[in-house]
Amino acid sequence: MRLELVNTGTELCLGDVINTNAAWIGQRMAALGIEVARQTIVPDGGAVKEAIAEAAARSDVVLVSGGLGPTNDDVTRESTADLLGLPLFEDAKARATLEAYFARRNKVPVASNFRQVMVPAGATVLENPMGTAPGLYFPAALGESRGWNCHIFLLPGPPRELKPMVEACLEPRLREWIPDGTSRRVIYLKLTGIGESEIVESVEKDLEKVPGLELGYCIGKGDVDVRLAGQPGPVEQGAEIVRSRLGDFILSEDQRVIEEVVIQRLAERGEWLATAESCTGGFLASRLTDVSGASKVFGHGFVTYANEAKQNHLGVPEDLLAAHGAVSEPVARAMADGCLRVSGSDYALSVTGIAGPTGGTEEKPAGTVFVALASKGQETVVKKLFYPVSRDRFKLLTSQFALDMLRRRLNGLPMP
Amino acid sequence: MRLELVNTGTELCLGDVINTNAAWIGQRMAALGIEVARQTIVPDGGAVKEAIAEAAARSDVVLVSGGLGPTNDDVTRESTADLLGLPLFEDAKARATLEAYFARRNKVPVASNFRQVMVPAGATVLENPMGTAPGLYFPAALGESRGWNCHIFLLPGPPRELKPMVEACLEPRLREWIPDGTSRRVIYLKLTGIGESEIVESVEKDLEKVPGLELGYCIGKGDVDVRLAGQPGPVEQGAEIVRSRLGDFILSEDQRVIEEVVIQRLAERGEWLATAESCTGGFLASRLTDVSGASKVFGHGFVTYANEAKQNHLGVPEDLLAAHGAVSEPVARAMADGCLRVSGSDYALSVTGIAGPTGGTEEKPAGTVFVALASKGQETVVKKLFYPVSRDRFKLLTSQFALDMLRRRLNGLPMP
Repeated sequence: MRLELVNTGTELCLGDVINTNAAWIGQRMAALGIEVARQTIVPDGGAVKEAIAEAAARSDVVLVSGGLGPTNDDVTRESTADLLGLPLFEDAKARATLEAYFARRNKVPVASNFRQVMVPAGATVLENPMGTAPGLYFPAALGESRGWNCHIFLLPGPPRELKPMVEACLEPRLREWIPDGTSRRVIYLKLTGIGESEIVESVEKDLEKVPGLELGYCIGKGDVDVRLAGQPGPVEQGAEIVRSRLGDFILSEDQRVIEEVVIQRLAERGEWLATAESCTGGFLASRLTDVSGASKVFGHGFVTYANEAKQNHLGVPEDLLAAHGAVSEPVARAMADGCLRVSGSDYALSVTGIAGPTGGTEEKPAGTVFVALASKGQETVVKKLFYPVSRDRFKLLTSQFALDMLRRRLNGLPMP
Repeated sequence: MRLELVNTGTELCLGDVINTNAAWIGQRMAALGIEVARQTIVPDGGAVKEAIAEAAARSDVVLVSGGLGPTNDDVTRESTADLLGLPLFEDAKARATLEAYFARRNKVPVASNFRQVMVPAGATVLENPMGTAPGLYFPAALGESRGWNCHIFLLPGPPRELKPMVEACLEPRLREWIPDGTSRRVIYLKLTGIGESEIVESVEKDLEKVPGLELGYCIGKGDVDVRLAGQPGPVEQGAEIVRSRLGDFILSEDQRVIEEVVIQRLAERGEWLATAESCTGGFLASRLTDVSGASKVFGHGFVTYANEAKQNHLGVPEDLLAAHGAVSEPVARAMADGCLRVSGSDYALSVTGIAGPTGGTEEKPAGTVFVALASKGQETVVKKLFYPVSRDRFKLLTSQFALDMLRRRLNGLPMP
């Protein structure tokens, strides 16, 4: 099945907005076994019609996003109707939905809003629960006079409106049109602590031997997804290969990231975590508190950027700092131990290093970092790492490693 | 001038990578006064040739990114040469550059690397200082036999290779081809604490009256850029209008974000900042420490998620917490005052609120937050805000507001 995307919007062409819809749709389609054959991005206006016509002429399905709003720039609906030679009628149900949408917000629609409830004859209205612009579906038969054999879907551009409609209106139809589409499965095995090339080396040869298994990799923030798609049998067989070889590295099979996994595990055990950060500067704590419900397992975080802060709040001895320097194994250990003590938590993670680009020395170049995990009744573990990368990436990789130390301890796995 | 982008890469179509190049290029072109007329994204392979041919037939300039690597999937170079009927020759200088690149890394190129130094007759090699794949420029004259009048640029896909080459190889040529291109200017006025619609209402009418001034808006993370482009006179005239009306909201005119502005200002004054965060959970500290050199002005951060942490580390009285609740004006004030005291800093920012989605009550719904600024020798200021948005966005907007309170105090401006 050949599927193309047409994304409309002057803001996309001017670069005022990053096109995250395209990647999200690409992933959703890949999960169905469809590789998007082309994405075309055009500004609002006349170029929209041209792009839809070109895409429809060579595709089985075209998904157009954007340009369904109430302004004069929004021409997707009218352009498509015009291409297919379809007159527009006001749709009574769509009008009622629009009026109800405004009424719930104590607002009154203006005249231009009613452009959004004009429906080309033969098209199906797709409900938009998150906004005022309904979507439209044009069955392939409507394009026969032009020699096309292409289903056309028009969906709104804002991601929070588009995404639920792709799931509710587009995907069920695609599944019907794909041979065995309704029984297709996809598993994302999310791995951390191992690079894509090592994963490839370990499992790719054997995964490629599983008949009918589609394999993909998606590099995330500090983790890698192995995407297995196809019929349930091969997918499960593939997953077993990954689980048996790389089980210790598997974070989740349901797209949960490491902070979610760790917080859920702590909550199950009724245990508490605290953090003491120097070079990650609060990023580790911030990742943990991105998870709703973090307050049940995380109560105390310290950003001890200055040596004085390490001494005053964590009780790191001044002579230890003087003897070894702030970026050292003994200081990382003292930070974690001190953090455990002053917070009364079950676990404490500490980080001390040189994020760079400045501040490095010959002995301790920028990118050097020590990460420690202290736990009640267990020996404190300290690891030395070296991430000579950008500041952002340094914070990401260091916090990922720290969270992975905790994940492994919580699951009784060897330290990374 | 009609300019199109063609981005190649299966990873873009599968959604494994978000296309940030397209937005960045869009912004760079907008600054030159060029609206990208179309972006076409195709997977590696045969579709590349088709997309280049279509774009070149209707454009003055086509920028193709990606597909210049050493693997069999990388067909951009050969496809373009084939379209233009140009034979390929090994380029001695490109070969020497490639060999030097590997030698510097103590590596030896393999046979496939030398595909990258094959140059179509008549094309100009564009040096890639960040990688092994040189770019190529095909002057419009090479396409005459096909009836095209289009300059074609091939650049590598990875952003850290592409971006410097757009600046060094593409933009100078575009500037020459645009009337008055070499004297064009662009100013980005970055504003915070005011929404796009308020900016439009305040200045758009008058900016539109300035002849030859091109106006754009770009919504950032917690801030908005007003982009003014054109000849120096109108651009400066436009900037004066924005400065005179909205001066207090202008963060920077050189693209610096608020954490950079605040840290630089503190460094100039030789002053120190500390933070005490509840609901932002370390995000405020993390933003500050994203800036290289933050350690000169930021030494102490607290993530006091639990009430006990607010008491133990910041000295917030237990009865204050009991009487008003953790999310309250008096507790925000006590956190900031306590943070100032225990850190010995000149300024302390505190945040306490309900990030949601859970944890809200009728009196204090999710999204309620108090932000306080304490400063040595000045009265502590507390502001109550309400951001009923996603958790990410809540942390962003709250930290932005806190940083803006400090920016305003450092600059002697009224509180927001």
